[in-house]
Amino acid sequence: MLGPVQLEAIQRAAGPGNMSTERATLWTYGMDNSRRHALPDAVVYASDHAQVRAVVQACFTHRIPLTARGRGTGTTGATVPIHGGVVLSFERMSRILEVNPEDRLMVVEPGVTNGEVQDAAREHGFFWPPDPTSSAFCTVGGNLAYNSAGPRAVKYGTVRDNVLALRAISGDGRDFRTGTRTTKGVVGYDLTRLLVGSEGTLAIITEATLRLTPLPEAIRTARALYRDMQSAADAVARLMAQPVTPCALEFIDGAAMDMIRGHTDADLPVHARAMLMIEVDGPAACLEPALASIRAAAGVDGLLEWREARDAAEVQTLWATRKALSPALRKVAPKKINEDVVVPVSRIPALIGGLEKLSAAHAIPIINFGHAGNGNIHVNLLLDPDAPGAWERAHACLDEVFALVLELGGTLSGEHGVGLEKRDFIDRELGDTALDLMRQIRTVFDPAGILNADKTLPLTGGLSAPLSGQASAS
Amino acid sequence: MLGPVQLEAIQRAAGPGNMSTERATLWTYGMDNSRRHALPDAVVYASDHAQVRAVVQACFTHRIPLTARGRGTGTTGATVPIHGGVVLSFERMSRILEVNPEDRLMVVEPGVTNGEVQDAAREHGFFWPPDPTSSAFCTVGGNLAYNSAGPRAVKYGTVRDNVLALRAISGDGRDFRTGTRTTKGVVGYDLTRLLVGSEGTLAIITEATLRLTPLPEAIRTARALYRDMQSAADAVARLMAQPVTPCALEFIDGAAMDMIRGHTDADLPVHARAMLMIEVDGPAACLEPALASIRAAAGVDGLLEWREARDAAEVQTLWATRKALSPALRKVAPKKINEDVVVPVSRIPALIGGLEKLSAAHAIPIINFGHAGNGNIHVNLLLDPDAPGAWERAHACLDEVFALVLELGGTLSGEHGVGLEKRDFIDRELGDTALDLMRQIRTVFDPAGILNADKTLPLTGGLSAPLSGQASAS
Repeated sequence: MLGPVQLEAIQRAAGPGNMSTERATLWTYGMDNSRRHALPDAVVYASDHAQVRAVVQACFTHRIPLTARGRGTGTTGATVPIHGGVVLSFERMSRILEVNPEDRLMVVEPGVTNGEVQDAAREHGFFWPPDPTSSAFCTVGGNLAYNSAGPRAVKYGTVRDNVLALRAISGDGRDFRTGTRTTKGVVGYDLTRLLVGSEGTLAIITEATLRLTPLPEAIRTARALYRDMQSAADAVARLMAQPVTPCALEFIDGAAMDMIRGHTDADLPVHARAMLMIEVDGPAACLEPALASIRAAAGVDGLLEWREARDAAEVQTLWATRKALSPALRKVAPKKINEDVVVPVSRIPALIGGLEKLSAAHAIPIINFGHAGNGNIHVNLLLDPDAPGAWERAHACLDEVFALVLELGGTLSGEHGVGLEKRDFIDRELGDTALDLMRQIRTVFDPAGILNADKTLPLTGGLSAPLSGQASAS
Repeated sequence: MLGPVQLEAIQRAAGPGNMSTERATLWTYGMDNSRRHALPDAVVYASDHAQVRAVVQACFTHRIPLTARGRGTGTTGATVPIHGGVVLSFERMSRILEVNPEDRLMVVEPGVTNGEVQDAAREHGFFWPPDPTSSAFCTVGGNLAYNSAGPRAVKYGTVRDNVLALRAISGDGRDFRTGTRTTKGVVGYDLTRLLVGSEGTLAIITEATLRLTPLPEAIRTARALYRDMQSAADAVARLMAQPVTPCALEFIDGAAMDMIRGHTDADLPVHARAMLMIEVDGPAACLEPALASIRAAAGVDGLLEWREARDAAEVQTLWATRKALSPALRKVAPKKINEDVVVPVSRIPALIGGLEKLSAAHAIPIINFGHAGNGNIHVNLLLDPDAPGAWERAHACLDEVFALVLELGGTLSGEHGVGLEKRDFIDRELGDTALDLMRQIRTVFDPAGILNADKTLPLTGGLSAPLSGQASAS
């Protein structure tokens, strides 16, 4: 609990109308999409760079925990204020400061949503490649914090590949700029990409210069059904080895298709056990030959059906099957653990095979879908929360899922991040020295340890941080 | 000078046949393409990860300066052993450990040349995008150290965009791995990109996992001549705002064209004052429409001539003009200062205009060419070294060139790096806090300060490091 002196210092830094300590407000800003919850002592609404700096300085001076937050769409608990203190919300700091098509860039405040960025870019014939499913709601600040990409990453890269420069404030209240307004540069160390993915533990970002990409003239969509996962994975490897990189290469596995069959009248042949959704973009005149190249690569032994959409209505129809999955999932399993592991593309079949075994061994249905072109698989453990020992079994299973991913040369998170959810697992992936270097870097940026303490990197003492709210992922 | 105990420790760590203290060898390994020179005490040939770790540990224990080096093609003095000690040469540690087309990656030791990487990738239908002019000689280790790209960066990005993972040894002799074998990942901080461009000041890289790109099926080449630089720059901005990103977008300015006219029988209309070389790649069937899009964008007011190569011979002819430049430059001005500044694409005309004024004011011919699509301009100050005060005038001019670049929102180096050449200038670009954070990060990785000390970041005391060789850039 903060004392009156601390609260007064924050209030002074925040400015009139920018701070709340009302119980209802504190409650609202205490959670994110992980469903974890903890109460902050105060919520501050960021308004501009100078105000944010003043707030960070006050927190530094008075050693007040500070948790930055966008719209709370994150799934890892990274914005849950586990130590109380101040939640710094960027919802009011959401201006688009500059759109510059000639230099292919846009300068924004972190509270702007991904969708607003896309709208502003589109007016000039551009887009910003990162496209999380939550793009209508999630903020650029959150995208930067988690390096959140989405389907287009297979062709256009992740956030790290699409940010040029940042303005930020370190944990001791000093402001600095990183990067350049240019696409090349090698002056000083790359602090830009160090901050991207650091989940608010190194500095508070107050401005981002985003790299824009010209909108493709046209997009074509195709759907391929396969006899089994191995065939689909072969197709993915062949698709990634030919010169036309698709702008989306999504897959869903047999268990997910069964679920869709059970809950919709989707037109899915019963013997199809894997599905790929493939999109190519580019100049309209190029798409026919591009699609020919894609079609040839996708045509491995085991391909059962290939459909190309010829108009917008057919695009809708093809995607309808894929989009039926999430509602079906919610109906079947109101509680699920959704992981976003990544393996090298060639190891996708081994991952899916291994997951089938784990599903059987732990008696937990596992549904897989995701961004096949990056090997980024969303692994969904479906729980019956009323079944005795359900959570314990799920966590035992998850443990083995992570072990499998690492054995296959993969990584535990592709786009959701670490936060609290995976904090206690990632030491298996990162070596001791790398972890020690990261911890020291954290201290360089945040010497008092006020920025999102006890998240993102494993705890050194092995003690879990106290949570005022619910248990993990419940 | 190292004492016998120190030398013995190094010899033991290096292993038999892997160390030399012969004067002729020391002399050879004391310079790079900056023409600076300083004598090391010993040259060690890296042979594998364990040996390199042992050498770094010995240097750490005995506080011996350590300078890693590839083939010495760098132009900034970053591999010149200004404090003596050990030069660690990677020429013998040059194996390609794995080529994995399915996962679009290749694992290499740092001593392999860029050209060898391209050859090995080509066998599988791939390439590695970074393509410095020196690719036949320069090593991947050097490419990583300087983040050196080349013309293809406009479409395919720089080294930072094309490296997945590293294995490295910190300055206190601890080994660690960074990154993943996947194209997505957000576990821990991004140490991979922190090391890329750090010029051997943070850690010694012993292994790199490179991200490969499928070879395009075909390439088309075009040349456009313009009335003036403004027209060419307008074309560049329009080219970068349409959806077909060229795989090369090079330019040379009027002064450079005059030089080519004076030294070759190149077919260059006398009133042309700027030239663009443009290449597009992709599936063969796509190139005609792609080129149409390029042609339309390039066709601004001021376009004097547009030529497309229809066969390999015509490609040669078109590039011949551009390639005549370097020999002509060498003939006219055996001494030149070649900077590689970058400005936002929209500021290229302002840069070229400003450089013309500086050229006149300082009575120094300035020739510009470079990677227009990235705004990465090679600014060549041509010196008559026998003229009185030539170096002083050149440095005064250079000072103003850098001021101009920063005023235009640019950066002082796009691909050559900082080393010694630009070390004393970059504090103008980086703010005090960013610089302080970088220095502290350096201390985290290299607590004893043995790795390439007094390079890459400005000195804190303002004292220049002693050089046993020649003066700057002579």
